[in-house]
Amino acid sequence: MKIAVDTLGGDNGSQPIVEAIINFLLKNSDVEIIAYGKKEELQLLEGKCQIVDARNIVPMEAGPLDVLRMKDSSMYQAVYSAKDNPDIDAIISCGSTGGFLSAATLILKTIPGVNRAALVAPFPTLVKGKKTVILDIGASNENSPEELVQFATMGELYSRYIFNVENPQVYLLSNGTEAGKGSPTSKQAYKLLKDNPCFKGNVEARDALHGDADVIVTDGFTGNIFLKSSEGMAKMMAGLMKNAFKKNLWSKIGYLHVRKGIKEMSETMDYKSTGGAMLLGVNGVVVKAHGNSDAYSFECALNVAKKLVDSDIVNKIKEGVKL
Amino acid sequence: MKIAVDTLGGDNGSQPIVEAIINFLLKNSDVEIIAYGKKEELQLLEGKCQIVDARNIVPMEAGPLDVLRMKDSSMYQAVYSAKDNPDIDAIISCGSTGGFLSAATLILKTIPGVNRAALVAPFPTLVKGKKTVILDIGASNENSPEELVQFATMGELYSRYIFNVENPQVYLLSNGTEAGKGSPTSKQAYKLLKDNPCFKGNVEARDALHGDADVIVTDGFTGNIFLKSSEGMAKMMAGLMKNAFKKNLWSKIGYLHVRKGIKEMSETMDYKSTGGAMLLGVNGVVVKAHGNSDAYSFECALNVAKKLVDSDIVNKIKEGVKL
Repeated sequence: MKIAVDTLGGDNGSQPIVEAIINFLLKNSDVEIIAYGKKEELQLLEGKCQIVDARNIVPMEAGPLDVLRMKDSSMYQAVYSAKDNPDIDAIISCGSTGGFLSAATLILKTIPGVNRAALVAPFPTLVKGKKTVILDIGASNENSPEELVQFATMGELYSRYIFNVENPQVYLLSNGTEAGKGSPTSKQAYKLLKDNPCFKGNVEARDALHGDADVIVTDGFTGNIFLKSSEGMAKMMAGLMKNAFKKNLWSKIGYLHVRKGIKEMSETMDYKSTGGAMLLGVNGVVVKAHGNSDAYSFECALNVAKKLVDSDIVNKIKEGVKL
Repeated sequence: MKIAVDTLGGDNGSQPIVEAIINFLLKNSDVEIIAYGKKEELQLLEGKCQIVDARNIVPMEAGPLDVLRMKDSSMYQAVYSAKDNPDIDAIISCGSTGGFLSAATLILKTIPGVNRAALVAPFPTLVKGKKTVILDIGASNENSPEELVQFATMGELYSRYIFNVENPQVYLLSNGTEAGKGSPTSKQAYKLLKDNPCFKGNVEARDALHGDADVIVTDGFTGNIFLKSSEGMAKMMAGLMKNAFKKNLWSKIGYLHVRKGIKEMSETMDYKSTGGAMLLGVNGVVVKAHGNSDAYSFECALNVAKKLVDSDIVNKIKEGVKL
C-alpha cells in the first residue's frame, strides 16, 4: 500500500506531520509513504520513505482554479500522483480544505453515477463507542435531491465497510421527524429514498447524536452548519466548565476529584481521534486531516486512510451506485 | 395593556400557566390578561383576570388548515381575539408551534413589506449578559434572498428596541466568512445587504455565539438546524458532565466544590429565562412559549410579551420595512 502525503499547509507546519509519518511507519511496515513538501523540513524522513521536493503552499482561501494553476505545490503534486496511477492508494492533506477538495475532484474525477463528491465525518454519539456518519458536511454549497440519494448510498457503504455495521440505519437531517417536514430539497429526497430498506426517515438536529442513526444525509451547506454549530457549542460548554473549575481554591480541589470523569468525557468528544474527514465519491481514497492536526491526530488520519484502502471502499462505491 | 393567553397544549398542562399568570399579575398590576382554556382548570384565576372557556386543544402536528378549522380551540380563539382588535396587545401560547405560527400568520396577516414572518429567539453568548438574536429559526422551510433582507431589518429593530443595542451588528449565517461563501440564497442575500451599514458580512456557525453578532440572519430551515444542533450538543455535554460527577464518591465530593460555578454556567445557558421565541413580521405581538414551559419560563414569556408591547415593536417594523 502506498499513501501520498501533502506535508504543507497545516496550521502547525510540517513537523507534526513528519512525526506522525514516523510513528505510523513504525507500526505499519507494509505501507509505503511518499511525502510531498520542503525537503529540508523532511530530513527526519530520509531513509524511511520517498520524499518529493514540492515547495509551494496552496493558500487557505484557494479557489478551484487557483489550485489547478499551482502545479508545483505539494498539494497538487500529491493529488496528481494518484491520477491514473494504481500505485498510489490514498492521498492525505491537512492544508486548505477548499483547495484540496477541488484538486481531488477535478484531478481524480467523480465515480460514474456520483454527481458530486461528499465530505463525510464520523461524529461521537451518546452511545459509548458508536459513531454516526454525517455527509455532506461541506464539499458543496447546495445539493439536488438526487445527490442526497447518492450520499445515502455512499454513507451506507461507509458505515457497513468502515464501521462494520450490518444494517446501517440511514436518516435525513430535517426540521421535524414527520415525512412532510423539511426543505424543498430534503422533502424531495425523502420521496426518492422511501423505498430504500435502510432509510428510516427524518431526524432532527437535536437528536442526531443520540446514537440511533448510523448515517445522516444532508446537503453540504446544512451539514456544514450542523458540524460547526455542534463544534461551537461543545467548545462553549467546555470553556464555561473550565471557568467553573477555576473559580476558586475549592473548585480547583473539586476538579481534582472529577478529572478522571472529565477525561472520559473529552475522550468521547475528541474529534482528533477521528483523524479528519473523507471525500467520498471520487476515484481514490482522499482524507482531509484537520487543519490544526498534531502528530496524534495526523497519525489517526493515516490510519483512517489505511482502513479505507483495506476496505476497498472506492470499488464498493463504484458497484453500489450502479445498482 | 391586554394579553391573550392560550393555556392549553403545553407539555405540562395548564397549571404552570395559571401559576405564571398569577405571579405575573402580582408584579404587573397595569396589565390585563384574558385566559383561554378549560374553565374548571382556570378556577384559581377567577377574580384575577378574564376567563374564556375554549376547550379544544390544537394537536402538536396540526397543519395550517387544521388550525383554521378548529375555531373552538383555545389557540384559535386567543389568536382571533387580536384580529382587528386594538384592545388586545399580545398573544401567547405554549401549544403546537406549527399550529400557532399558522394561525397567527393567517389570521393576523403579515405586515405590508414583509413576505414571510420569522421566528426569532435570543441565544446566550460567551460575552456575559449579551444575547444574539437569530432569525428565522423555523417559521419557514425555505426563504428567498429578499426575505432574508427583510429578516435583517426586523432583527436589527428587535435588537435596537428590545435589547437597546445602539448599532446592531448584523451577520448572515454561512459556511465561511468570505463574501463568496454560502448557499445560493445566502450569497444572493449578501449582495442585497452589502450596502446596509449594519451588515457586517458572514459568520460561521461555530463563531455565532461568540458575542460579536447582535443579529444573525438565516433561512428557516438552516436556522432550525442551528438551533437544534446547538441545543442537542449542549444537552449532550451537560449529560456527559453529570456522568463525570456521578462516577464515584470522590467525584460527588468534587461536585460539591464546583456547584456554584456549574450553577452560573447553567444560568448562562438557561433558555427558559428567554421565555421562548417571538414571531416577527405579523400584525401583532406573538410569543411562542416553550412547549415544556414551567411557571417560571411562562412568566418570562409574559414579560417578553410586555416588553415587546412597550417597545411598540410592531409599529417600528411597519415603519422600518417601508424604508
